[in-house]
Amino acid sequence: MEKYAEIYRRTLLDDVMPFWLRHGMDAQHGGIITALDRDGSILDTDKSMWFQGRAAWMFGTLYRTIEPRPEWLEAARSCVEFIRHHGEAADGKLYFTVTREGKPLRMRRYVYSESFAAIANAVYANIASDERAKADAIRYFETYLRYSFEPGVMSPKFEGETRPAKGIGALMIGITTAQELRENLGDVKISGATCTEWIDRWIDEISRDFLKRDLEVLLETVSPEGQLLDHFDGRTINPGHAIEAAWFILHEGRLRGDQRKIDLGLTILDWMWERGWDTEYGGLFYFRDVHNRPVQEYWHDMKFWWPHNEATIATLLAWKLTGEERWKNRHRLVHDWSFAHFPDPEFGEWFGYLHRDGSPSVQLKGNMWKGPFHLPRMLWYCLRLLEE
Amino acid sequence: MEKYAEIYRRTLLDDVMPFWLRHGMDAQHGGIITALDRDGSILDTDKSMWFQGRAAWMFGTLYRTIEPRPEWLEAARSCVEFIRHHGEAADGKLYFTVTREGKPLRMRRYVYSESFAAIANAVYANIASDERAKADAIRYFETYLRYSFEPGVMSPKFEGETRPAKGIGALMIGITTAQELRENLGDVKISGATCTEWIDRWIDEISRDFLKRDLEVLLETVSPEGQLLDHFDGRTINPGHAIEAAWFILHEGRLRGDQRKIDLGLTILDWMWERGWDTEYGGLFYFRDVHNRPVQEYWHDMKFWWPHNEATIATLLAWKLTGEERWKNRHRLVHDWSFAHFPDPEFGEWFGYLHRDGSPSVQLKGNMWKGPFHLPRMLWYCLRLLEE
Repeated sequence: MEKYAEIYRRTLLDDVMPFWLRHGMDAQHGGIITALDRDGSILDTDKSMWFQGRAAWMFGTLYRTIEPRPEWLEAARSCVEFIRHHGEAADGKLYFTVTREGKPLRMRRYVYSESFAAIANAVYANIASDERAKADAIRYFETYLRYSFEPGVMSPKFEGETRPAKGIGALMIGITTAQELRENLGDVKISGATCTEWIDRWIDEISRDFLKRDLEVLLETVSPEGQLLDHFDGRTINPGHAIEAAWFILHEGRLRGDQRKIDLGLTILDWMWERGWDTEYGGLFYFRDVHNRPVQEYWHDMKFWWPHNEATIATLLAWKLTGEERWKNRHRLVHDWSFAHFPDPEFGEWFGYLHRDGSPSVQLKGNMWKGPFHLPRMLWYCLRLLEE
Repeated sequence: MEKYAEIYRRTLLDDVMPFWLRHGMDAQHGGIITALDRDGSILDTDKSMWFQGRAAWMFGTLYRTIEPRPEWLEAARSCVEFIRHHGEAADGKLYFTVTREGKPLRMRRYVYSESFAAIANAVYANIASDERAKADAIRYFETYLRYSFEPGVMSPKFEGETRPAKGIGALMIGITTAQELRENLGDVKISGATCTEWIDRWIDEISRDFLKRDLEVLLETVSPEGQLLDHFDGRTINPGHAIEAAWFILHEGRLRGDQRKIDLGLTILDWMWERGWDTEYGGLFYFRDVHNRPVQEYWHDMKFWWPHNEATIATLLAWKLTGEERWKNRHRLVHDWSFAHFPDPEFGEWFGYLHRDGSPSVQLKGNMWKGPFHLPRMLWYCLRLLEE
C-alpha cells in the first residue's frame, strides 16, 4: 500500500497538477483552457464550462485537504470567477462552451455544467469563506434538480409519449454533487430535502430501478418503472460509469456506517467489472450490450482513461472495506494496466483515448471532456484512502 | 474493367440487395428495419426515417435502371408508404426515428430525412406514375431548402452571434438531391430556381468558400465568408465526405460537358485522397486535422465502409473521365482494400466499422446510419459506368 501511495502522490503533485497549472491556466482572461496537445500547447482556445467547475473543485479540494498552496487557491478562484462572469445565459442556465474571452458558444439541454459549478463553488466557499460562492453552489444545485427531475423542464431528446425512459446519469451526478455540498457546506437543505436525504433517495432508486439481479447488471437507461428497454439505448451498458456509481455508493456506506449501501456498491462493482474487463488485452471496454449483442457505438471497445480511474478508486475502496484478496488483485490489475498504457513518458500527464490493444488513438491531453478531473481525483482519493 | 463490372453486379444482385430484402423488409408494418445483426437477425425494431427514404430510392432506382423486378417496386412502395403514414410530425417535418409500428421516437434539428424522402418519392413517382409522390418529392425538397438555407428556421446548435459558421453538408446533399429530382422529374423549378440552377449555385459556393487552394484541402465548416475557423470544428476534415462531394461534382461536369466542374472535382478528389489514405494500413481515415494536429474525435482513425464506397465511385469516374493511370491505380487500391476487409464471408453484406488495421469493431450489418444505401449505390453506379 505504501508503494501505491507514493505513486499516487508523485503523479498528482509532480506531474498532473503542474501540467495543468503551467499549460492550462489563462493568465490573460482567467479560467482554464483544457484543449491542450501532448506537449501542453493549445489546440483550441474555447473554454469548457464543465471544466471551469471541475478544475476549480479539484484545485480547491487539494488546497483544503492536502496543503494550502497559494497557487491552488488562485487557480480555484480564477475558474470560479470565470463562471461568475461568463458562465450564465440570461435565464441563469450555464453554457457548455464559451470563447477564451467568455463569449457564449454553445448551450446544451442537460445540466452538468451546473453540477460541476455547484461543487466548485461549495469548496471555494469553504476555503475562501466566500458567501456568494455558498449561495451560488446552492443555486446551481437547485437548477440541477429542477432540470433533472421536474417533468417538462429539460427539453426532451425523444418524443416523450411513445417510449418514456430515464437515465442513471442524473442520479449518479446528483449523489456526488450532494456529497460534495455536504462535505463543504454541511448537510444543508436544498429544494426541500437535505443533501443526505437526496443521496438516500437516489441510491434507493438506483437499487430499485437500474440494478437487475437476474441479469447481474446495472443498466444506464430504463423505463420510468425500471423495465429493461429492449432497444440499442436500453441494452447499452457502460461499465466505467457503473463502477463510478459503485464507489459513490461505497463512499456513502463507509461514511455512514451503512452495510446495506456497502453491499450494494460491492455488488455493482463485482458485476460490472466482470462485464467490462477485457480478458484478452486488459483494460475496461467503454460500452457493452447487456445480452452481449453488438452495440450501436462503433468505438465501444476503446479504452478511455476515466473508467480506469474510477475502477482504481472503486477496487481500492472495496479492498479497504473488505480486506478481500480479490479486490486487491483487481486493484492491482487496473492500476498496472493503467500505468503501463496511459502515461505520456515524454511530456507527462496521461493520454485519454487508447485503442482496444492499448495503443494511443489521439495524443492530446485535453479537450472539452478531458482536463484536470478524473485522473487527479483518482490520485487524490486513493492517496487519502491509503494515508488514513 | 470487365472483371470489376462482374464483381459489382454479383455483389449487388446476389448478395447485398437480397440480404436487405430478406431480413430488412417488414411484412407486418411495412417499411424497412435496418438495425440487423451479422446474420440478419433484428437488433432493434426501431425504424430510421433516413432509411425509409434511402432504401426506397435504392430499390426504385434499381427497378428503373437495371430491370423491372416486382419485388424492388414493392419494396420501394412499402418504404414510401411508411413515410406517408408515419413520417411526418404535425408541422410536416419528418422524424429521425419511429417505432416499428410508426409511433414517433425522435425528431432532430436537421433535415436529411427530408432530402432522402425527396429522392425516394422522385424515383417512385417516375416508376409508379404516382402524382402524390411527385408532389411529396417537391414538398420535401422545399422543406429541405427552407431549413437548410433560410436563416433562423433550423434551431441553432451554437449561439449564433459569437462565431457564425456554415457546413458543407447542406450544399452536398442539396446537389445530389437536386440531381435525383432532375433525373426523375425533369429540371423542375423549386423554391424559385431549377434543379440545375440550385446545383450550379452550390458547386460555386463549395469552390468559393470551402476549397482552400493554399492548403490543398476541402473544409467541412467555415465562416459565412469562407474563412478557416482555427478551432476543433473548423480544422476537422472528413476525407470520405469530401470525396463524395467530388464525385457529385464530377457527375455533374460529365453530364453537362462542363470541364471546369470536372477539373474542380478532380482537384478535390486528388487533395482529399492524399489527406485521407492511410499509407501504413491502407484504407481511408475518418477524420483528419487540416494542420495534422490531433482531432477531438477519438475514433478518427477508424475505417468506415461508406468513405470507401464513395472513393471507389470517385476514382472510377476520374479514371473514366481522364484515362489516367493514377486514377486507375487509386481505384484498384480502394477496391482491393475494401473487398479484402469489409465483406462478411459467412453471412454476406459488409461490416461497417473497422479498426484502423482493418479488423472489425462491431459485426452488425446495419443500424440507424447503415442500411441499403452507400454500398449498393456504389455497386450500382460503378456497374452502370462500366457497362456504358
